[in-house]
Amino acid sequence: MTAPTLLTDRPAYQQLASLTPSQTQLDVTAELAADPTRAERYTATAAGLHLDYAKQRLDDSGLAGLLQLAEEADLPARAAALLAGEELNNTEGRPALHSLLRAASGSGQDERFSEVCATRERMRQWAERINSGQQRGYSGQTITDVVNIGIGGSDLGPRLVTEALHPFQGLVACHYVANVDPADLQDTLLQLDPASTLFIICSKSFRTEETLTNGLAARQWLLMAGATEAELDKHFLAITTNLAAAADFGIPEDNCLPLWDWVGGRYSVWSAVGLSCAIAVGWDHFTEFLAGAEAMDQHFISAPVGQNLPMLLSLLEIWNCNVLGAGNHVVLPYDNSLQKLPDFLQQLTMESNGKQVSAAGTQLPYQTGPVLWGSAGTMGQHSFHQLLHQGTRDCPVDFVLPLTTHTGMSAQHQRLVANCLAQSRALMVGRSEAEALDALAGRGVPLAEAERLAPHMMMPGNRSNSVITMDSLNPATLGALLALYEHRTFCSGQLWGINSFDQWGVELGKEIGAEILGELSVDGAGVGMDAATLRLMEAWRAARPKS
Amino acid sequence: MTAPTLLTDRPAYQQLASLTPSQTQLDVTAELAADPTRAERYTATAAGLHLDYAKQRLDDSGLAGLLQLAEEADLPARAAALLAGEELNNTEGRPALHSLLRAASGSGQDERFSEVCATRERMRQWAERINSGQQRGYSGQTITDVVNIGIGGSDLGPRLVTEALHPFQGLVACHYVANVDPADLQDTLLQLDPASTLFIICSKSFRTEETLTNGLAARQWLLMAGATEAELDKHFLAITTNLAAAADFGIPEDNCLPLWDWVGGRYSVWSAVGLSCAIAVGWDHFTEFLAGAEAMDQHFISAPVGQNLPMLLSLLEIWNCNVLGAGNHVVLPYDNSLQKLPDFLQQLTMESNGKQVSAAGTQLPYQTGPVLWGSAGTMGQHSFHQLLHQGTRDCPVDFVLPLTTHTGMSAQHQRLVANCLAQSRALMVGRSEAEALDALAGRGVPLAEAERLAPHMMMPGNRSNSVITMDSLNPATLGALLALYEHRTFCSGQLWGINSFDQWGVELGKEIGAEILGELSVDGAGVGMDAATLRLMEAWRAARPKS
Repeated sequence: MTAPTLLTDRPAYQQLASLTPSQTQLDVTAELAADPTRAERYTATAAGLHLDYAKQRLDDSGLAGLLQLAEEADLPARAAALLAGEELNNTEGRPALHSLLRAASGSGQDERFSEVCATRERMRQWAERINSGQQRGYSGQTITDVVNIGIGGSDLGPRLVTEALHPFQGLVACHYVANVDPADLQDTLLQLDPASTLFIICSKSFRTEETLTNGLAARQWLLMAGATEAELDKHFLAITTNLAAAADFGIPEDNCLPLWDWVGGRYSVWSAVGLSCAIAVGWDHFTEFLAGAEAMDQHFISAPVGQNLPMLLSLLEIWNCNVLGAGNHVVLPYDNSLQKLPDFLQQLTMESNGKQVSAAGTQLPYQTGPVLWGSAGTMGQHSFHQLLHQGTRDCPVDFVLPLTTHTGMSAQHQRLVANCLAQSRALMVGRSEAEALDALAGRGVPLAEAERLAPHMMMPGNRSNSVITMDSLNPATLGALLALYEHRTFCSGQLWGINSFDQWGVELGKEIGAEILGELSVDGAGVGMDAATLRLMEAWRAARPKS
Repeated sequence: MTAPTLLTDRPAYQQLASLTPSQTQLDVTAELAADPTRAERYTATAAGLHLDYAKQRLDDSGLAGLLQLAEEADLPARAAALLAGEELNNTEGRPALHSLLRAASGSGQDERFSEVCATRERMRQWAERINSGQQRGYSGQTITDVVNIGIGGSDLGPRLVTEALHPFQGLVACHYVANVDPADLQDTLLQLDPASTLFIICSKSFRTEETLTNGLAARQWLLMAGATEAELDKHFLAITTNLAAAADFGIPEDNCLPLWDWVGGRYSVWSAVGLSCAIAVGWDHFTEFLAGAEAMDQHFISAPVGQNLPMLLSLLEIWNCNVLGAGNHVVLPYDNSLQKLPDFLQQLTMESNGKQVSAAGTQLPYQTGPVLWGSAGTMGQHSFHQLLHQGTRDCPVDFVLPLTTHTGMSAQHQRLVANCLAQSRALMVGRSEAEALDALAGRGVPLAEAERLAPHMMMPGNRSNSVITMDSLNPATLGALLALYEHRTFCSGQLWGINSFDQWGVELGKEIGAEILGELSVDGAGVGMDAATLRLMEAWRAARPKS
């Protein structure tokens, strides 16, 4: 392919990068005071989500430059190309059509769409079969628990959705096992009854090491409990393209739901990989989840850049990371049921854009994807917020805030809302040394002591943050939220010139892992290994229990 | 106080900072090949922990410079001063004596130590009373479940320890509630029976907003279930210094265990804040946990710098963050039961060293504490490792690896070990474009296609990482591990000139939170608030259910 245009070659970016410090260091609190319409103008709304970026360290000229950049990079056309199924994953020769998985119509993708619809129908049947108690285990008991075994994209998405939508939870409980550490599976199975447990093995290739290892252990657990090999089909479904391997495992074709090579793992929660969520919350809620994402898709390909949520979030990422130099991005959901959101977004963004070559394979001369991290508010306020407020590093924040609670405990939820708005405001306004002195004087601290303490209480403020709100967290707004970050990731990848849909960097570790596993198994000499790895292998041998 | 010496004013640091790129960009794989003794020399062992830093991008001259820096900064004397109770928390006029909480003798701290011993004895009595079934609830049932209500340091430490030591778990299950989001408490209480549940309210001031809100809701839950106010003492303990407030809540003095102002929240798991852990794993295991930490304390004040684990980890932090310019630090425990370790270390390090003024209140002219993040391996391999291997940002890693498993599933654990060593090696060796071409040719990929793909498979390697191993994860090694990171944090703070024991940056958010809560409660006009915050308050009002 022809090399994509570099970010640094775009005139709009060059102009942004040459902004004077007075523009990039502007005092956001003063901007807001001088022009309160900013609070209204720096917002956008779509699919039940409201973005407020008035506290970003950005003024109208910076914003205009970013919008110009989006036009130069033709983001609206790129969005359309993504949804139309152009082969944007060029290294693997595929489109990235996760949007088709939630589409109501197939616009131009008729063959693929009919497969999607057929699979949706099979998902619906399985979900209803299990939820209605028709699916029975080897002893005739109905299924009460489903364990999803998968890792990465086959785990983080379904896990997040099931947890976030737990107010919509039905009778069948869904559990998630990912880690190859045997403790993960063991702890989960301890609470379950084999006779009423069903496993979903999620692995596109049916070859993922962790998933297969856990799947085989689960199979063993059932056989030990009294199930026969012939009865395994009552307890196992597979989400895979490798029907032969699933059959070898004991899962017949009727129990296998397909994936397609045009769905990346981290974009797959909308596919049969989401079956555990559909079971957990019921089919109707799952379709609302898909519809919420589709509403965001439609917004993405139709809204003007300046009102386009994914594009705005992406432009803010470029602004914070490339123009202002931040190396990380913080996501703070002020809702305990979204506590897995940072983990999900970590994979989505860091696996998609943690790359140093362009889609054409040329070295990129600038920083790309930042480290994404975070936790559920208000937890971080008693932990890492110290660094957000007073550390030396710029950490731009996205607050995510449902405005109401499903718990009925609205007085307590009001405190959560107040805390979220307070953190957002405190990051912006900071506290000057003079204000600190005033505060100390107000507490009756003697002047000399106040002067000693004030520098420690001083906070620079002016720290960029956005607030994404929704009236309530429900299947539709959750779908929209995840699709929002998917498309933001795509837009940033496009601006950086990256293919956001491959992940070559995870290959080498797997290869070396297989080599080392082989050496450990046979007490090999570790030919070709470095001296430090050899020494660690030796330490493992010395520590393991003697048989 | 006199201003501490700046890092940049130290001759050893100036020399490190002037190293040529050939020294800071050295090829670690080549270094190891040229001198395999490096694998032995770049290690240190103490208190059951083994540190291997042979894969750090550091050579003998860099290491010598770092050791020189430690001597110039007098780290051994600072360590001794910390443990001797010098008033190192100068802004609050206190020592930081968490080491006394795990000490076997009081060396010079007789009065404080006798209080510590008395409290330990009361902890032991409570733990044994609850574990032996002597403690009974309002209806006469024995206590089967303990819920710790605390946040930040009153939550992360005990939660981590209970989870990490779950193979040692006794009959009474411990749960943790932290978030002011009502869903956190509600989800926990759903599974519990009020008649057999005991709550521990952990709040030094007995004024922490989240903790009090949850405590009052728990109190209400018990009263609704049929307990009388007079029976609340059968269901509540408090860890606090505010006996009056606890008494108002309904917790008599006999049910209160003390804290002291010389214990910071993030250093408090060794105090009565750890009571829930002592209940979960039993008193004997808890004392082993303390003893493991004390072994690290003794190592810290006695081992020479070059063999001193906390000092070495701290010097590596300075090397990676200040000399090489990394902005973050990744911790990857390859043990599922340590999955909360990154959260714990996030608070420990970012709250301690996320500061931009020196202990004397002067602005620091260099970067201080990095963003710390991570997850349990192998989860990240299917997620953010893409960025670790191929992203544009330097992310130094600490791998933490217990060499054996408690699960008995040793074949599966072997895979975990192999994966950990493989990731550590892959980060170092990387893959050149030529190696990628070879690999592709080996798979029969045609040359033109291989040439197109090779740049995407190329990995720069040379990414700094350390491996910390222990023969097994048990109370003693866990105690040593946490104490190791505590002292590392202290040493880095000393090198940066920071007071690691205060946290002034969390104050302003609390104040603004109280203001906003007041405004929300009375539908106030938000006097003095910025326009963006006002708009968000308005959105909340519009969304909340009408009463």
